[in-house]
Amino acid sequence: MTEMKDKPLSRFLDELAGKQATPGGGSAAALMGAQAAALVSMVCNLTIGKPKYAEVEAELVALLGESERLRGALTGMIKSDIEVFDQLMACYAMPKASDEEKAARNAQIQAALRVATDVPLDCAKACAKVVTLSRVAAEKGNLGVISDAGVAVMAAYAGLKSAALNVQINAGALKDRAFADTKLAELNEVLGGAEEEASAVYRIVQSKL
Amino acid sequence: MTEMKDKPLSRFLDELAGKQATPGGGSAAALMGAQAAALVSMVCNLTIGKPKYAEVEAELVALLGESERLRGALTGMIKSDIEVFDQLMACYAMPKASDEEKAARNAQIQAALRVATDVPLDCAKACAKVVTLSRVAAEKGNLGVISDAGVAVMAAYAGLKSAALNVQINAGALKDRAFADTKLAELNEVLGGAEEEASAVYRIVQSKL
Repeated sequence: MTEMKDKPLSRFLDELAGKQATPGGGSAAALMGAQAAALVSMVCNLTIGKPKYAEVEAELVALLGESERLRGALTGMIKSDIEVFDQLMACYAMPKASDEEKAARNAQIQAALRVATDVPLDCAKACAKVVTLSRVAAEKGNLGVISDAGVAVMAAYAGLKSAALNVQINAGALKDRAFADTKLAELNEVLGGAEEEASAVYRIVQSKL
Repeated sequence: MTEMKDKPLSRFLDELAGKQATPGGGSAAALMGAQAAALVSMVCNLTIGKPKYAEVEAELVALLGESERLRGALTGMIKSDIEVFDQLMACYAMPKASDEEKAARNAQIQAALRVATDVPLDCAKACAKVVTLSRVAAEKGNLGVISDAGVAVMAAYAGLKSAALNVQINAGALKDRAFADTKLAELNEVLGGAEEEASAVYRIVQSKL
């Protein structure tokens, strides 16, 4: 089967819109994060090597390394989200006629829900990092492509808020409340200040247009 | 040449990250809008036909028609943004040795800037409409996929704010201030209230998780 990242954009959009549960919002969140990281990389690539920006070159080379690492991770999460959601659906479809079947099904569902909490949490964390990277791109990048840093921060923030919804749903369905509360606390830490930071980066970009 | 929408996701992301000026933030904005519209469609497709949601079926059938229309328009804008930006770059590369050449170059640049203002403005308008549609999806859609309405509104809002940057840059470079001011006024009308509306829709989704 062709992996989602290897399918044409239009095909991804068709499948996103369709009656199948996957790909869904989780994959869209990962793709928004990957687009954001790609745009930070673009700003770096169009700044590095320009004499006018020689002073920030070393910093943007390091930024590019980080944005490309996150782009790779977020692109991989497009697929992870599909896998974890399909796995969860398979667990819900398990037989539940006898008490043994019910117990086995519940155990599998709870195991799948842990993974289904961790995957979007990783996506949220990666998107939050891209928000941080976009500030450097907005502050130091080539003025000719500075708007791309503004698009990057909006995409990263949207990816973060989107992934957060999936963490909240799946953590909410977990019976292991200690595990769930730990994950929700991690999510809240990631969300804390992100809106203000995203708005601040967007304003930096607007002030340079 | 393969149209962008027919290229694999990973290839689009590679080109977005790369040293070429296109695809850039404008295409990313259109893709975010298209993802948002696709997710509204997904919520509709997973609600229509379910007996539990029979009461809202007619409304969601109409919503689906509108979201699919906007998805088509926004998917087309991925390409339009590349074309208009490449055209603008070609104008800037025109010879400017003589006064005649300078005059011809300036006239071409100004003509291209008009199109380069209109294209992202159309994208911003379409994204703002998807924000509105996502409210209906959040209010009326199948609770099992309600988080996808939340991802839709974040993606649409990010697309709107991203497209707005390109309208502002290109309108700012226009010599025809009457034209530019008309376009900026249209943009401000589209932006007005969008942040509050996007937050409100996101809160509706969170209240239903």
